[in-house]
Amino acid sequence: MEIRNEIAELLTEVKIKNPLVHHLTNYITANDCANIVLALGGSPVMADEEREVEEMVSIASALVINIGSLTTLTVKAMLKAGKKANEKGIPVILDPVGIGATSLRTNTVKEIVNEVKVSVIRGNMAEIKILAGLKANIKGVDSREEINSEGERIAVELARLYNCVIAVTGAKDIITDGKKVCIIENGHKMLSQVTGTGCMSTSLVGTYAGVTNDYYLSSIAGIVSMGLAGEKAYKSLKNGEGTGTFRVKIIDNISLLTEKDFREGSKVHEQ
Amino acid sequence: MEIRNEIAELLTEVKIKNPLVHHLTNYITANDCANIVLALGGSPVMADEEREVEEMVSIASALVINIGSLTTLTVKAMLKAGKKANEKGIPVILDPVGIGATSLRTNTVKEIVNEVKVSVIRGNMAEIKILAGLKANIKGVDSREEINSEGERIAVELARLYNCVIAVTGAKDIITDGKKVCIIENGHKMLSQVTGTGCMSTSLVGTYAGVTNDYYLSSIAGIVSMGLAGEKAYKSLKNGEGTGTFRVKIIDNISLLTEKDFREGSKVHEQ
Amino acid sequence: MEIRNEIAELLTEVKIKNPLVHHLTNYITANDCANIVLALGGSPVMADEEREVEEMVSIASALVINIGSLTTLTVKAMLKAGKKANEKGIPVILDPVGIGATSLRTNTVKEIVNEVKVSVIRGNMAEIKILAGLKANIKGVDSREEINSEGERIAVELARLYNCVIAVTGAKDIITDGKKVCIIENGHKMLSQVTGTGCMSTSLVGTYAGVTNDYYLSSIAGIVSMGLAGEKAYKSLKNGEGTGTFRVKIIDNISLLTEKDFREGSKVHEQ
Repeated sequence: MEIRNEIAELLTEVKIKNPLVHHLTNYITANDCANIVLALGGSPVMADEEREVEEMVSIASALVINIGSLTTLTVKAMLKAGKKANEKGIPVILDPVGIGATSLRTNTVKEIVNEVKVSVIRGNMAEIKILAGLKANIKGVDSREEINSEGERIAVELARLYNCVIAVTGAKDIITDGKKVCIIENGHKMLSQVTGTGCMSTSLVGTYAGVTNDYYLSSIAGIVSMGLAGEKAYKSLKNGEGTGTFRVKIIDNISLLTEKDFREGSKVHEQ
Repeated sequence: MEIRNEIAELLTEVKIKNPLVHHLTNYITANDCANIVLALGGSPVMADEEREVEEMVSIASALVINIGSLTTLTVKAMLKAGKKANEKGIPVILDPVGIGATSLRTNTVKEIVNEVKVSVIRGNMAEIKILAGLKANIKGVDSREEINSEGERIAVELARLYNCVIAVTGAKDIITDGKKVCIIENGHKMLSQVTGTGCMSTSLVGTYAGVTNDYYLSSIAGIVSMGLAGEKAYKSLKNGEGTGTFRVKIIDNISLLTEKDFREGSKVHEQ
Repeated sequence: MEIRNEIAELLTEVKIKNPLVHHLTNYITANDCANIVLALGGSPVMADEEREVEEMVSIASALVINIGSLTTLTVKAMLKAGKKANEKGIPVILDPVGIGATSLRTNTVKEIVNEVKVSVIRGNMAEIKILAGLKANIKGVDSREEINSEGERIAVELARLYNCVIAVTGAKDIITDGKKVCIIENGHKMLSQVTGTGCMSTSLVGTYAGVTNDYYLSSIAGIVSMGLAGEKAYKSLKNGEGTGTFRVKIIDNISLLTEKDFREGSKVHEQ
């Protein structure tokens, strides 16, 4: 079956199964992440107190770890939640926000990937390069790296190293499980002018990962969802509307996403 | 006087008195809670550092305690703020978000209701059942329980036990002070697809509680306000608009709420 | 050159230089602050873990310290970040949210201004009066003080005392470096019905401060930007739209701001 049809069916699975997606995430975009999971058809829950994360993740279908506003306390909780997720066979989706910007972030991500088996890592090109031990051009939490064939090679190697799916998002997106590579060309550049579109993409990937064991496919589904929503959001903008309305319409378009949108609009091609 | 007229007048009271509503709440929906209090005509203040909550609550007209993203530190602050509110005669509105999902949440809510005299507890049916010591079907912070006559009985008993108002929200809403019972049938099911509509309802209840000692009435006013806003928000949606726009329009419609809306649109009936 | 032309050019500088603006801010309005910095053309980064703030601020063009939801831990991080910013010659913009509401807030602001050289302090009239050691009529984090010639005198003295720019925002705005005084009459009263418009103004000031050493000018640019966006947002409201849509349109109008808007719409006059 073609990928575009497979991810279309995954959308319906989300609507039917309504997966609970436990987040340990940042306070900047937590509201957007919760709303986008709901818009897709999942149930979000945000909980990062160390004393409750093991219990919470045990009832979840997927765990999203996003280090956007990490603290000493939440990092401990992330490790605890991640290990419990592993024990229970719950997929862990990691968003290494701003790795490379500070050594705390770099070390924390390394600690997580060493101690927790992650199913998917979703980041921008700079974050993925830094995770691979390379230098990268970053600006705070934003990437200044192009997505090209070298980036593709790095992603494939990293996927093999950690035996997980790597999802690199940017002007183009690269999804790889270390064997297969899928390039996605959906999306719109205005997505980079709204905070949290990366975090929201990770949450979408986590929601799809809650209904299938094929994390390569759920990653494609999540990234294409955001891309399609971004395209439609942009097209619907009227005169006098800017990035504020665009942000609202991203959620709108996730909530209105149909199988048909995937079948007709997905710009995915496997290498 | 009919309830619909009484709550209509309460709205005007809020606009005139502009009550300060101190929140100890979660980081996921804090922005929405602040904006909805402002939209109604109150003044929100969010402060949860233990060292300042007593001073802050002392100048407030109502205290909202929402355990949505509780931590060891904020729970201490909640107890401190709650006790000070009791001392000063300031109403305490409790939102036991996700009670039952983890033992930390269940124990925290019990600790709060044992140590602090609460005026109103606002939750979904699952949360209220768990608070009553019963089993309930929950999914993270979402209820999978129907609102029916058994639920009504549980709410009445709980209201008597804690000598407070219990506000159960869902497809229908039950407000009871242990003697009177009011059923509300405003609202729209899309409200469950936006994060924080429960939290915002609690904040609205808190805002009305800041201008009257009748917490049964202020609870009805808060829940009807959200119901009316949800109905109007849904009706105003155009083709291509989904849950993102709906969320914005909830705030819009709270800010535009009039006495006439209450008098003509309230679907309240006392049992 | 006229001020309106100078600030117009500063807007283009922001678009070209894309300054990284490090925030230690509150969880209530962090998302809005991040989105407004992006909308203007800057890059926001929010990081408040003590162990990473020095590294993060070292790569930034400006530091915004906002005490809206201060905790014992974040105050330590604020001092650390502020001192490092001083060491590196990076401007520090302080928003003393709610100073006077609690002694913790008052003492924290005093500690910051004593230990850190701040370039700009942006607050409402009550906050500025309290910082000047005077009594003021506040309600939680909201000011109940008029902006008048006495306020202007207080601002000028405070600017001289701390050798910084003081930006007082309200119905009218006062910007002063202790010598020059600029009055701004842009804006709309609906801005006070949305949470975070003060915080966002501070973030805008910080973004402009990231591209010039003239902090008097960057403060005027930031406050005029918010004023123009508020005016346009209000004008664009249709029947049935309220404070929710208004908030979205503030971000829209910041993202659409042009040099022409400044040249034609700025209502600035130096005293």
